[in-house]
Amino acid sequence: MLGLLAATDARWADAASADLDAVLRDHAHCEMKAATHALSLAVRHAGDVALVRKLVAIAQEELAHFDRVLAILAERDVVLGSPPVDEYAADLRARVSGLPRAIDGRLVPPLVDRLLACALIEARSCERFKLLSERLGDRHELFAFYTELFAAEAGHYRELRDLAVAAGGEALVEARLSQIAAVEAEIVAERAARPDRASIHG
Amino acid sequence: MLGLLAATDARWADAASADLDAVLRDHAHCEMKAATHALSLAVRHAGDVALVRKLVAIAQEELAHFDRVLAILAERDVVLGSPPVDEYAADLRARVSGLPRAIDGRLVPPLVDRLLACALIEARSCERFKLLSERLGDRHELFAFYTELFAAEAGHYRELRDLAVAAGGEALVEARLSQIAAVEAEIVAERAARPDRASIHG
Repeated sequence: MLGLLAATDARWADAASADLDAVLRDHAHCEMKAATHALSLAVRHAGDVALVRKLVAIAQEELAHFDRVLAILAERDVVLGSPPVDEYAADLRARVSGLPRAIDGRLVPPLVDRLLACALIEARSCERFKLLSERLGDRHELFAFYTELFAAEAGHYRELRDLAVAAGGEALVEARLSQIAAVEAEIVAERAARPDRASIHG
Repeated sequence: MLGLLAATDARWADAASADLDAVLRDHAHCEMKAATHALSLAVRHAGDVALVRKLVAIAQEELAHFDRVLAILAERDVVLGSPPVDEYAADLRARVSGLPRAIDGRLVPPLVDRLLACALIEARSCERFKLLSERLGDRHELFAFYTELFAAEAGHYRELRDLAVAAGGEALVEARLSQIAAVEAEIVAERAARPDRASIHG
């Protein structure tokens, strides 16, 4: 699904649905982090206006989602609290920066790696929203919300992948995406062995 | 005007209108910096949901302005380029952090200082947009844009000041605003003596 090489362990949805408040808190922070990360990428690549405008549009959508999750938290009387470290995302970015710098003798632009790491994080969030909405069932009050966000995150995956293609070309992106997806699958497998699953990337 | 203690030197509008491309480039970066600064304040105060939601709403509006300035730059065939250091804003924040920590024996919450520094930066941008639109005249293609943004920045000044009042109370904010406005007026006077005025805070 969306470039991902490993499906999430089925127990994730059990743990997540058992502590929805924790998942929602974490989800809010994930949206904010995705927004600020997209903006920092935009600032770093200020010379490429098409890229900048698309990243800003993605950030605006993430901020709108952030605000909607905050509204849900308020309804449930749950306090947001400080942002936790997203070990999954930090680990993914660290391992991506350790990949060989070239594929078949062609240098991979750092921008391609950054965009593809973001794209796969969106893809994983998307998969998890789908698992969660299926686990909650269509009578649950959050079903419509997570179904809608599932579609939005899938859109972000495609937009970020398209931006990577614009920066590095289809063949290079296809090859690099496989490498990064393999790294991502490793991290997800490692995290499945640990107990904390009441978070989006847990 | 809007808490400002010193009016901008009239020559600023001459210099700015003589190099509109440079002003627009700088303006775009100012909007992005205001957005990312509001988001970083929101993340730092994640426990206060009302504050967070208002800061995110302000950031979203700044990002919308940023995108509109980018569209104007594209029409004019001007490249955005890397963000310059905003010496005015950096200087203001540095001097605010050197102010006495208490007023009449009452500690000033750091959040109040951060919000009031942001509020005065918005107020100064607002004043400059007004000066620029008046200098360009109502037949200029950018007149309507800068008149609209003048109103938006004035709104942000008020919203940020209101958030400071919520955090520290009216009397404390009134007293601190006078101190910070005095610092801001000093910086503006110092900068007026230097030649570079083709920027929003030049």
